[in-house]
Amino acid sequence: MNKDNFKHTPWNEPFITQRADPYVLRHNNKWYFTASVPEYDRIALRRADSLEGLRAAEETFIWHAHESGVMSQHIWAPELHYLDGAWYIYFAASRKDDIWALRPWVLRCEGDDPLKGPWTECGMLKCTDDDEFSFTDFSLDKTVFEHHDRRFCVWAEKVSVGRKISNLYIAEMSDPLTLKTPQMLLSSPCYEWERHGFWDNEGPAFIAHDNRVYLTYSASDTSPAYCMGLLWADANADLMDISSWHKLNHPVYTTDVERGLFGPGHNTFFTDETGEVYTSYHARQYDEIIGDPLYDPNRHCYIMRVSFEDNLLIFNKD
Amino acid sequence: MNKDNFKHTPWNEPFITQRADPYVLRHNNKWYFTASVPEYDRIALRRADSLEGLRAAEETFIWHAHESGVMSQHIWAPELHYLDGAWYIYFAASRKDDIWALRPWVLRCEGDDPLKGPWTECGMLKCTDDDEFSFTDFSLDKTVFEHHDRRFCVWAEKVSVGRKISNLYIAEMSDPLTLKTPQMLLSSPCYEWERHGFWDNEGPAFIAHDNRVYLTYSASDTSPAYCMGLLWADANADLMDISSWHKLNHPVYTTDVERGLFGPGHNTFFTDETGEVYTSYHARQYDEIIGDPLYDPNRHCYIMRVSFEDNLLIFNKD
Repeated sequence: MNKDNFKHTPWNEPFITQRADPYVLRHNNKWYFTASVPEYDRIALRRADSLEGLRAAEETFIWHAHESGVMSQHIWAPELHYLDGAWYIYFAASRKDDIWALRPWVLRCEGDDPLKGPWTECGMLKCTDDDEFSFTDFSLDKTVFEHHDRRFCVWAEKVSVGRKISNLYIAEMSDPLTLKTPQMLLSSPCYEWERHGFWDNEGPAFIAHDNRVYLTYSASDTSPAYCMGLLWADANADLMDISSWHKLNHPVYTTDVERGLFGPGHNTFFTDETGEVYTSYHARQYDEIIGDPLYDPNRHCYIMRVSFEDNLLIFNKD
Repeated sequence: MNKDNFKHTPWNEPFITQRADPYVLRHNNKWYFTASVPEYDRIALRRADSLEGLRAAEETFIWHAHESGVMSQHIWAPELHYLDGAWYIYFAASRKDDIWALRPWVLRCEGDDPLKGPWTECGMLKCTDDDEFSFTDFSLDKTVFEHHDRRFCVWAEKVSVGRKISNLYIAEMSDPLTLKTPQMLLSSPCYEWERHGFWDNEGPAFIAHDNRVYLTYSASDTSPAYCMGLLWADANADLMDISSWHKLNHPVYTTDVERGLFGPGHNTFFTDETGEVYTSYHARQYDEIIGDPLYDPNRHCYIMRVSFEDNLLIFNKD
């Protein structure tokens, strides 16, 4: 494959600065980019004719946080999807009067051009009537994917009284606004590398390749300990059966002090013009943060090549 | 093996009536029995020189619930263990002024004869300083076992806000009163047969055989839907690594209407005089319960033979 087509900077230099939770969608040979902005107050979207083009593409702010009430605070981790003939943006948001009440919200655009809109608010993602648990507590980082003619979503949600644990859940979807099944617990932080600062699994990203499907996720707090883990299943397995899923007991991507890359995580998968697989993720260039890391603006978007060897997903530092 | 040594009644007739969460310990060729009594207000213990002898053995009440405060209500699922040269009883209890605040409590007897005592209250089971999650919510059905020179406990605890989910957790122990590691989530109810009435996993029981270890548990609410599931791991695997554990996607023991056995669950494993493996569990003889099933006294103790075939644990209805 022609690796030169995407003129990416060295893997350890930012592709786009001050954009966390970076998300890239390739659709009809255009590349779209969205992410959390440091102010957490609006949704940015850009488009280009190539992956490389995203770097300098003009950013359009297609939606702004409400002044108060729902969707007024912490606008986090938007994802753009084209589903059933319309554009959807999934994002997490809380309220100015309850800043940790993160819930999954949905925007829809029925026009051809998602940068022009118009974007309509479709409310919160809906769970099934017999699911009394989903979206009842701190919930974010929802992703959507299709596999073997079924549509799934995976998200992070906290449980427990007092201090809380952020787990990953999966459900099948009946339409872009609605879950079809109750939640199933997919992963809970159980290794030390998932429990630094917070016991946390979040930022899921799905990719299918050959005879396996892979789900990467991020673990621990937003510090240099932030890292990425991996779940996998056979491509023909029922993804709504927990016995189909396997969890690696070690992280697959971590801080690299020598190369100046701290706390990598919250990735997504896509291809470049040649069909080669890449992932975007965010990281910092330093580890000494003054104040709450959440409000440090310098989580930058990086891009890295991905390959598959011996039935495992490999992040390529080249 | 001589199956006639234990003169058990037909497998579908009660061994001891009105004793739920039945627990049998074989120690120094004596058999001990304890269970939840229908009044949930005291701990019963009996001993015999044979498994069969437990049926008619006199019952001693070695401890009574407090009048108020901690350990005053819902005295549930006691287990007797002989650890490090002393007798221990683990049980769950709540308070009259907060009847669902179930927590794991420990009694110790340093004398030779646990029926005589004296029994000392050792307080709540202690978790590690960095474990802010264990025993903070509705928690019960703690069991203790040793495997390859390590001591573990597994218990059920609820999570979530509003309606709650009962999961199974495992931790290693440093002494009979103290956990050595933070909790690890072992199983969460994810199949329909684990979600009837309540999303519930509870009543864990451990047994090692040949090259595998097995952990049975009970699922769903205390109705005819109550049933038993199975986790297993390789005998040489690290039991504190979630990737070592495998969960069957079907129950291994369920209601048998024709044989008049409803809602079987909360089992434990032990051997008879010949070394043959048995399990005790409770079930009802009818499915029409008036009022709250929890306060229906007729969960009886049954005993059933267990075998191991094709690396799986089999319950034998013979």
